Amino acid sequence: MVSSRVKIELITIGDEILIGQIVDTNSAWMATELNKSGFELAQITSVHDDANHIIESLDFALRRADVVLFTGGIGPTKDDITKQTLCKYFDTKLVFDESVIHNIEKLFSTRPNFVMNELTRLQAMVPENCTVIQNLVGTAPVTWFEKDGKVIVSMPGVPYEMKNVMSTEIIPRLQKHFKTPVLLHKTVQVYGYGESALALLIADWENELPEYISLAYLPNSGIVKLRLSGLMDDVLTLEFAMNQQIDKLTQILGNAIVVYEDILIEKLIGNLLKSKNLMVATAESCTGGNIAHQFTLIPGSSEFFKGSVVAYSNEIKTNVLQVSTEDLENYGAVSQAVVEQMAIGIRKLLKADVSIATSGIAGPTGGTPEKPVGTVWISVSSEELTLSREFRFGSLREQNIIRSTQAALLMLKEII
Amino acid sequence: MVSSRVKIELITIGDEILIGQIVDTNSAWMATELNKSGFELAQITSVHDDANHIIESLDFALRRADVVLFTGGIGPTKDDITKQTLCKYFDTKLVFDESVIHNIEKLFSTRPNFVMNELTRLQAMVPENCTVIQNLVGTAPVTWFEKDGKVIVSMPGVPYEMKNVMSTEIIPRLQKHFKTPVLLHKTVQVYGYGESALALLIADWENELPEYISLAYLPNSGIVKLRLSGLMDDVLTLEFAMNQQIDKLTQILGNAIVVYEDILIEKLIGNLLKSKNLMVATAESCTGGNIAHQFTLIPGSSEFFKGSVVAYSNEIKTNVLQVSTEDLENYGAVSQAVVEQMAIGIRKLLKADVSIATSGIAGPTGGTPEKPVGTVWISVSSEELTLSREFRFGSLREQNIIRSTQAALLMLKEII
Repeated sequence: MVSSRVKIELITIGDEILIGQIVDTNSAWMATELNKSGFELAQITSVHDDANHIIESLDFALRRADVVLFTGGIGPTKDDITKQTLCKYFDTKLVFDESVIHNIEKLFSTRPNFVMNELTRLQAMVPENCTVIQNLVGTAPVTWFEKDGKVIVSMPGVPYEMKNVMSTEIIPRLQKHFKTPVLLHKTVQVYGYGESALALLIADWENELPEYISLAYLPNSGIVKLRLSGLMDDVLTLEFAMNQQIDKLTQILGNAIVVYEDILIEKLIGNLLKSKNLMVATAESCTGGNIAHQFTLIPGSSEFFKGSVVAYSNEIKTNVLQVSTEDLENYGAVSQAVVEQMAIGIRKLLKADVSIATSGIAGPTGGTPEKPVGTVWISVSSEELTLSREFRFGSLREQNIIRSTQAALLMLKEII
Repeated sequence: MVSSRVKIELITIGDEILIGQIVDTNSAWMATELNKSGFELAQITSVHDDANHIIESLDFALRRADVVLFTGGIGPTKDDITKQTLCKYFDTKLVFDESVIHNIEKLFSTRPNFVMNELTRLQAMVPENCTVIQNLVGTAPVTWFEKDGKVIVSMPGVPYEMKNVMSTEIIPRLQKHFKTPVLLHKTVQVYGYGESALALLIADWENELPEYISLAYLPNSGIVKLRLSGLMDDVLTLEFAMNQQIDKLTQILGNAIVVYEDILIEKLIGNLLKSKNLMVATAESCTGGNIAHQFTLIPGSSEFFKGSVVAYSNEIKTNVLQVSTEDLENYGAVSQAVVEQMAIGIRKLLKADVSIATSGIAGPTGGTPEKPVGTVWISVSSEELTLSREFRFGSLREQNIIRSTQAALLMLKEII
């Protein structure tokens, strides 16, 4: 009943990862997407721009995997040697490809600051025996090779170029090339439990999952995504079986389930606001504009997001948001009184229907015995109701900002 | 003159990275530390908990490297098989080691929630032919093997356990075991050139670099970092030679050099503001709070950052930032007139010394023939001077937000 999956290996080329200059977020993104698309990622290898080493890695990878995906090392500068190396490996030569030049010209037509030069033109030299896939958001083309039933692809390492071409070209082509079995994912997002507490709570359910349904825990700052992946030849039977398991899970977890969908929480809130014709505004102290930033990353967010005041000084809290100077002095900025006035103040100032306010100690300094680093007050407000809650997160600044953002969004969900 | 460095490879074991559950931050940390300590990291490999695959990876790694460092797969649960696999590889057997039990008992004495169980006791079973290094912050011991002059170490994958044992034990022992040369890195950040235009401009300089200094191009949304790496036995001679090369580079690039340091631009601006005792405020339309978010990620940002108004509707631009309704109608929100009034408005509203304002079409929709998606007006303002500029970025929303943020920060640098 279970079909075996197509094996893929990633090889990242370049010094950045190996000298620790960047964290390899590309591979994490690719791993997620490939798994979701029904492929098995068998190995990730990072090597320098060294021809022998690249060829050796490719050789070993092809012994194990059906597909090898290269990222990086295809820029126009001389430290980038992937193209030449693959040419040698596939015993072919570089030829000029007019379509690459057309693509670059089209790209540059929207960016008057960029001009075609000799190095850019070199991007149009591609190996003769490969399929060229245009990179719509960068100058380096993607090359797709086939050998003994296996597929080898070389693509850019620049994250947004890689993501664009992976989503729109590589994954769809791989699914078509190999006949991938039916793979269904269902995601349930759970709030309020750590990963291990959640694992204990649902252990019996997990142990009784049928062998064709696997479970992954994907923890992400306060929320744990439970992803069920089912692999079967018959899609209807699989769909039915997975829904049954999710019903059982709902009986165990109840209200801790935020949503039955793999969606960003800010997007979920945005959709809810739009469907109810509500506009939101935020008054942010400890989150420093991150809630506004998360909202405005969503295309079309002006349909539900009015704006924000980042009140990083007490002066702004009193002058712009109309927080009482007395309350600020008596209770401090991180208090129920102040955060509620911020929420009401921003709602009125920006004439929004609902609002979010945050005030807390993000750290690493600024904590006191009563209000240690990680203490955060959050308030959400509408015409009818203002709801406030105190949280104690951890000691890491960035984590505190992210967790406050998530908690604030989930509180807003309660009142809309 | 050039010393060859000791080659190290990392092998991470476990599913988390390969299914995209976590980003491999361990390897980035290890890469940074190993390079700083004069070692060369030749390859990073991530594999599943699979005995054959682990042994194959070790075999290949030992053909190339002097040292192989394993992380992960040494917990007490049954999916962790690294210890058994290494035992088999080194043709030895597991023996009970009393010192590991003592270490765990000591550790548990400070953590009342933890109790020794059968699984924990199993941690004291270690391969007979290895050096056991105690893990002072976790239960899994570290094992150090030597074979044919090469070193193989297996350590935990839990980040703080790995970091602790790497810093205090593994790196010092490796430096002692091998004789390590001097390695220096110097970074120059360049703005205003694409990677290939920059490469052309500095081609002569690059070609004349001495063989003991290597160059890497690290592009990152509008900025290209040039990193020089020098390897020599004498640190003073090397330092002098690298500074000479950077002087030559300065003669070619002049003002395009943003900073001679590997530092985030927002951090650089924050330091500049603090040193001049200036407070900044932002009025953000298309960047949607991202400039505020980047500033407030920096610990202590309240010393230079006052706050922000995210003006996602025209109403806020006129009511809160005092932009003229007439100008908004005549020129549109994405115009010099409006962005300048936003910059001046926020500076006065929040009583800041300097300010940034952004207004643009982030996309994917909202573009017109005269103002296509990617058109962004940015203004920076102080008491003395207001400076405005129009940019044309690309078609991707997130990239437009990031590039507008970076351009705005660099414009602010011009007036402070």
